Amino acid sequence: MSKAAAYALPSADGSFEKVTIERRDLGPDDVLIDIEFVGICHSDIHTARDEWGGTKYPCVPGHEIAGIVAAVGSSVRKYQVGDRVGVGCLVNSCGKCEPCLAGEEQYCARGASWTYNSPVPEETQPGGYTLGGYATQIVVTENFVVAIPEGIDLDVAAPLLCAGITLYSPLKHWNAGPGKKVAIIGMGGLGHVGVKIAAALGAEVTVLSQSLRKRDDGLRMGATHYYATSDKETFRQLRNSFDLIINTVSADLPIDNYLRLLALDGSLVILGLPENPMTVHGRNLAAYRRSLAGSMIGGIAQTQEMLNFCASHGIGADIELISADEIDSAYDRVIASDVQYRFVIDAGTI
Amino acid sequence: MSKAAAYALPSADGSFEKVTIERRDLGPDDVLIDIEFVGICHSDIHTARDEWGGTKYPCVPGHEIAGIVAAVGSSVRKYQVGDRVGVGCLVNSCGKCEPCLAGEEQYCARGASWTYNSPVPEETQPGGYTLGGYATQIVVTENFVVAIPEGIDLDVAAPLLCAGITLYSPLKHWNAGPGKKVAIIGMGGLGHVGVKIAAALGAEVTVLSQSLRKRDDGLRMGATHYYATSDKETFRQLRNSFDLIINTVSADLPIDNYLRLLALDGSLVILGLPENPMTVHGRNLAAYRRSLAGSMIGGIAQTQEMLNFCASHGIGADIELISADEIDSAYDRVIASDVQYRFVIDAGTI
Repeated sequence: MSKAAAYALPSADGSFEKVTIERRDLGPDDVLIDIEFVGICHSDIHTARDEWGGTKYPCVPGHEIAGIVAAVGSSVRKYQVGDRVGVGCLVNSCGKCEPCLAGEEQYCARGASWTYNSPVPEETQPGGYTLGGYATQIVVTENFVVAIPEGIDLDVAAPLLCAGITLYSPLKHWNAGPGKKVAIIGMGGLGHVGVKIAAALGAEVTVLSQSLRKRDDGLRMGATHYYATSDKETFRQLRNSFDLIINTVSADLPIDNYLRLLALDGSLVILGLPENPMTVHGRNLAAYRRSLAGSMIGGIAQTQEMLNFCASHGIGADIELISADEIDSAYDRVIASDVQYRFVIDAGTI
Repeated sequence: MSKAAAYALPSADGSFEKVTIERRDLGPDDVLIDIEFVGICHSDIHTARDEWGGTKYPCVPGHEIAGIVAAVGSSVRKYQVGDRVGVGCLVNSCGKCEPCLAGEEQYCARGASWTYNSPVPEETQPGGYTLGGYATQIVVTENFVVAIPEGIDLDVAAPLLCAGITLYSPLKHWNAGPGKKVAIIGMGGLGHVGVKIAAALGAEVTVLSQSLRKRDDGLRMGATHYYATSDKETFRQLRNSFDLIINTVSADLPIDNYLRLLALDGSLVILGLPENPMTVHGRNLAAYRRSLAGSMIGGIAQTQEMLNFCASHGIGADIELISADEIDSAYDRVIASDVQYRFVIDAGTI
């Protein structure tokens, strides 16, 4: 076992404190990573504060990890010491089920191992559940480590490991590209990356945000149009317009209103999980053969593809870099939507 | 103008009575059809009894029309007197919008003209709204008439004009075929045709019906599996199973339970329109990148393709042939799900 420093929450209503955790000894397929930057995702907050239930404490969140390879196991072939690498939401999966064989490890039929708060054998992580990236080091099996190409700084790359792939995967799956009209609901941590990627894919991008407050940013990031959803006229004007709408907002939305913005064969894809069930009138689906769908991050191969794509298009997240002792206040600011657009922890301060 | 005999409902709570209606004089592109058979669709009942609102009286329903060409306009090239032809739910559309140009006239952006109770100019139908196929004759523009191939009797072909295309279109759109697992919810007028078509397309077909009462019929029509949805074990056993589920039932169903039966990238397509909105938990969509979609009949070219497909596979509806004076009681039996599987009116009795 090796020691690492980490920031952990001792209980749902506690504050983050510095602790020492153990990482497993390097197996033949393992990669030891010196973490340089780790993003703060809204899922970290839901888990740390036990809002989804089942959180084990102490809890070390963090699944937007960027760093440098510090050591490799004897069988590792893809990486060597000094490589720039990342780890996202997944650290393992069965590798044998249909989704895994299709490269969609996030939908592993036996249940993937998530980067934090996921049950694993003691020999994989002392304590029996995974501890995430708010730490100085992490050990991850080679196949769940991705390379971060030159041409993209590690700090702005970190949020791509969750926010980036969460947007890239549905944009690719539902064929965002030239000639397609894509709307992104929400200009937060997920949404702003979605605007950049969708625009780089060649789609005509519209932002649907509560207000026009972030309009200049949206246009700078690649959107052609920007509408306020607080204005009822938006829903009249944009009716039957979009081939794809990606909903990055986890608040309860009037889904029927957004379905009516879809053109023939259009899809509305939800990424955030609203607390309450959605209510949907069948006629808004049948009228134009529309679909309401969901998507969850993306597979490892596609995560690598996304990083290569972002590097070649100069895409990183817009971030606010913080030190580890600012995590608590950063959480409060995320909840208040007061961040432009993703907090990233400088792991050198852990 | 020419005269035709028809069966009309004088008011929402009235009974059908024999009337004389007018059909327009043949324009250059028009086809006059001697109707031989016309199916009874549940939509006929909703409209006739004003359950969807907006019904004009007297109301002549009927959009599953099979007959013989009696005369053609001067410019008609596709059909000649004596041809076996059909008319479905559509009798016209703008022809210029994106859906029309894509051959999806049912989604015409300007609103298609439906076969009955649809507003049209007086010169198109005296009275200003369309009158359907519970009649001895109908006049329809050439492009909205389809050929009924030899090898399929007109009586069992009639229901294909609505029920057949309503199932064929989504089965094709969502790629039902060899290697695909398709479930059909409901073994009624729509469902039984769906079983036949899906099996002929090469899919592995499962029927999900309230009870096992119609199991033998389902297996005879091409289903490999047949499950009762009244048995909770069905929902445990079939979890994550299907590539495509077609819901032909318009009653309110617990949609979440059915979504969980979909495999990775599976789609649940609703055809009937439930009275109440559906409630859907986002996690059941995101978990396996599932979709909830809707579909409405199909375009004219695809209706022709469907008829050719059905003729070459020996597919017709299973019908109960009735005379025109039995329409009222047939309606009551449809509502009681007491029909195997579609009523067809012998138009010779009108």
